[in-house]
Amino acid sequence: MKIPPVKGTRDFYPAEMAVRNFIIDGWKKVSIRNGFEEFDSPILEHLQMFTLKSGDEIVEQLFSLKDRGGRDLALIPEMTPSLARMVNQRINSLPKPIKWFSVPRLFRAERPQKGRLREFFQWNIDIIGFEADDMLADAEIIFTTLDYLQYTGLTENDVVVKVSSRKLLSAFLKSIGIAEKDLPDMYALLDKKEKLPPDTFKALLNEKISERDKVSEILTFMEFDSISKIEKFIGVSDEVNEAINELLEHHRMLDEMGVNKFYRFDPTIVRGLAYYTGIVFEVHALNSELRAICGGGRYDDLLKDFGGPDIPAVGMGMGDCILEILLAEKGLLEKRLSKSTLDYFVVPAGVMTFDYEDGTVKTTAEDEVVKLTAQLRRLGYKADFSYKSTSLSKQLQEASSRNAGKCIIIGDEFKNKIIVIKDMRTGSQINVNVDTFLSELNLGANNAK
Amino acid sequence: MKIPPVKGTRDFYPAEMAVRNFIIDGWKKVSIRNGFEEFDSPILEHLQMFTLKSGDEIVEQLFSLKDRGGRDLALIPEMTPSLARMVNQRINSLPKPIKWFSVPRLFRAERPQKGRLREFFQWNIDIIGFEADDMLADAEIIFTTLDYLQYTGLTENDVVVKVSSRKLLSAFLKSIGIAEKDLPDMYALLDKKEKLPPDTFKALLNEKISERDKVSEILTFMEFDSISKIEKFIGVSDEVNEAINELLEHHRMLDEMGVNKFYRFDPTIVRGLAYYTGIVFEVHALNSELRAICGGGRYDDLLKDFGGPDIPAVGMGMGDCILEILLAEKGLLEKRLSKSTLDYFVVPAGVMTFDYEDGTVKTTAEDEVVKLTAQLRRLGYKADFSYKSTSLSKQLQEASSRNAGKCIIIGDEFKNKIIVIKDMRTGSQINVNVDTFLSELNLGANNAK
Repeated sequence: MKIPPVKGTRDFYPAEMAVRNFIIDGWKKVSIRNGFEEFDSPILEHLQMFTLKSGDEIVEQLFSLKDRGGRDLALIPEMTPSLARMVNQRINSLPKPIKWFSVPRLFRAERPQKGRLREFFQWNIDIIGFEADDMLADAEIIFTTLDYLQYTGLTENDVVVKVSSRKLLSAFLKSIGIAEKDLPDMYALLDKKEKLPPDTFKALLNEKISERDKVSEILTFMEFDSISKIEKFIGVSDEVNEAINELLEHHRMLDEMGVNKFYRFDPTIVRGLAYYTGIVFEVHALNSELRAICGGGRYDDLLKDFGGPDIPAVGMGMGDCILEILLAEKGLLEKRLSKSTLDYFVVPAGVMTFDYEDGTVKTTAEDEVVKLTAQLRRLGYKADFSYKSTSLSKQLQEASSRNAGKCIIIGDEFKNKIIVIKDMRTGSQINVNVDTFLSELNLGANNAK
Repeated sequence: MKIPPVKGTRDFYPAEMAVRNFIIDGWKKVSIRNGFEEFDSPILEHLQMFTLKSGDEIVEQLFSLKDRGGRDLALIPEMTPSLARMVNQRINSLPKPIKWFSVPRLFRAERPQKGRLREFFQWNIDIIGFEADDMLADAEIIFTTLDYLQYTGLTENDVVVKVSSRKLLSAFLKSIGIAEKDLPDMYALLDKKEKLPPDTFKALLNEKISERDKVSEILTFMEFDSISKIEKFIGVSDEVNEAINELLEHHRMLDEMGVNKFYRFDPTIVRGLAYYTGIVFEVHALNSELRAICGGGRYDDLLKDFGGPDIPAVGMGMGDCILEILLAEKGLLEKRLSKSTLDYFVVPAGVMTFDYEDGTVKTTAEDEVVKLTAQLRRLGYKADFSYKSTSLSKQLQEASSRNAGKCIIIGDEFKNKIIVIKDMRTGSQINVNVDTFLSELNLGANNAK
């Protein structure tokens, strides 16, 4: 009987796996060159880890289960709580700052849609444990994100990083008289601004706030489209001053790092999650209907909320689904995907038996193909042969379709231990003694070590 | 509040992650050089996929859950059913033989014990779609397995591959009068031989089979310890002959491939799973109490059972837990794990401001450190700096503890655009213009492409 795949999940056949590997290998490579170390958590965590910060309603968006012992577990929908748990477990022995990355497989029980699946991969980079007023870590997180996006071939004509400050927003809202306790609701509402028609957004805002002048001040604030314009807010309150100075210093550092061309100040970036405390950002594709490619920011209170110390932290998460759509739209996948290749494809020229002159050995061409292929693999080369007994020309066709660099032909000459090596690009052939050939390869392999 | 990790799972801090990456990267590398292509399935599959072949009792050993739509899902405990599903979905368009590998994360709801956890990784290699009587695929699977184990540094003094034939066992049991319908129970019992004291095993066998001579014949068969000894069974039945010829041809091919030194015929290798139909094998550590490192065999009926065609298949699965214990016991992890290193560690020699002669630029040493590090990373180098404002000697100590190959010092000389490059192994230093240095690196990076 036939069983279908689970809704909202993907099967990775070799072609799709090559795309996934291109994306994830790049995440790893760029993380490492930016000084991050890889870690990973289990896929299963206690459900409570997620309800603790997000309330019971989060359970609806999770895949959860009970183990034999009746414990409530969840398939993780994000990495940050696990990171907080792991860091807190070893907080005293880990050298600071902790610069870690991970590429977990995550799960959410939502209705699947374009670019948003129930099972996906996410790149996480986080820096934990530095001076709270130092903007270097915040800048490094955005630089590393942009380093990766440039690595894939995207440029400032394709993507923009929109930066804002949760601290500035909070200070601004308080300065116009919004109560501290109403802030989480306000964040959730303001986060929707870019996703709603202007009139709808304004109506929702009026519903929430009765004073017309406050609504108008919020709308004005949300329209500031450059870092210089917010400087006129300096002096509104100490907290506002601090937030603006952070933004200016952060921007200056990104400029030093050479990525100013991607930068845009945008106060509509609020980020839905409750735990952000400072700089927040999202990367968006330019002239595109796609959701954000990634997002992140400063979360100074999260470790403490999970039973750890009061220690600053900043991070970024990038899923693979939207990214893959963008890379495909820009033609960057076909350009950058390395084709699967072979170093050697070994073929028998007909079915023949070799009786050596000294009478000691008796093998067939097909035996020798298997033997030589095994030796090449042990030396570290990608080598293969055909499972079909076909003509030499069919075998060479198969070598070509497998993108073999060289073909080794075992034919009549092999009774004198001679193999024919055919360069598949130039078509040129040379004859060489098989033992000489292997010992030279072996020498090369040893030298390469 | 503190939340513990889930029982039977592992946290991968950077040190544990390095071990996991060493194991999994090796699995990938060796698969590719042996001509396998990578694929992957979702972690969630319909529960029915597992109950279909293994009955409802398997549910006890799985992590299962209901999605919002009330569908029963499972976290996959093995890869082969998903492989069969995916191959069947595209059976007509996939070129044969299909040579695929995967490194899935798997789950089983058992009591955790040494080398057996609830969440683990498993290397799978499978070949599907070849002539049923061709032993080449069976030999390639074992060769590739041994290629990997040798790649880790293990030798014939450490591991042995124990080979038997489910087909021979079935033919032999039928030849002494065991009914076809009793075979699955017999496999389950005989699979326990090596795990039970001899007397207990014999008692269980006597309980199952009343005729003393049959019990004695089975015990004799299970004691054969070489491939030559089974040849005396030739002639017992056509099926026995076929199974013995397969074993002999399979052994001859492994000999051609140069891995005979690892080979041992061992009829106690039965494999618990019901779906094997031909050659079966396990790799065991020599002189060790560890369970099998891996196992596999021919499963010619599985694709058909999952609604696909009648097509031969052979595969192998190797978990990471037992393997890691063995590699650690043999001292191969510390020997082979590549330490995390940096190409460049960039340090400011004190806090200083540079006013250039032309008066256009004014930066600090720390700014220049950040800027140069960003440039090095964009060129593809692993580069980092300290988050601490400490003395030059402390900074050099940090470079050393981070295994930096070179240190770049930005000090007084930088007012003339000169940086100091210190080789951390030899201690030698050179002074060079920063722009010259970067353009030479850039040239090198372009040449290397």
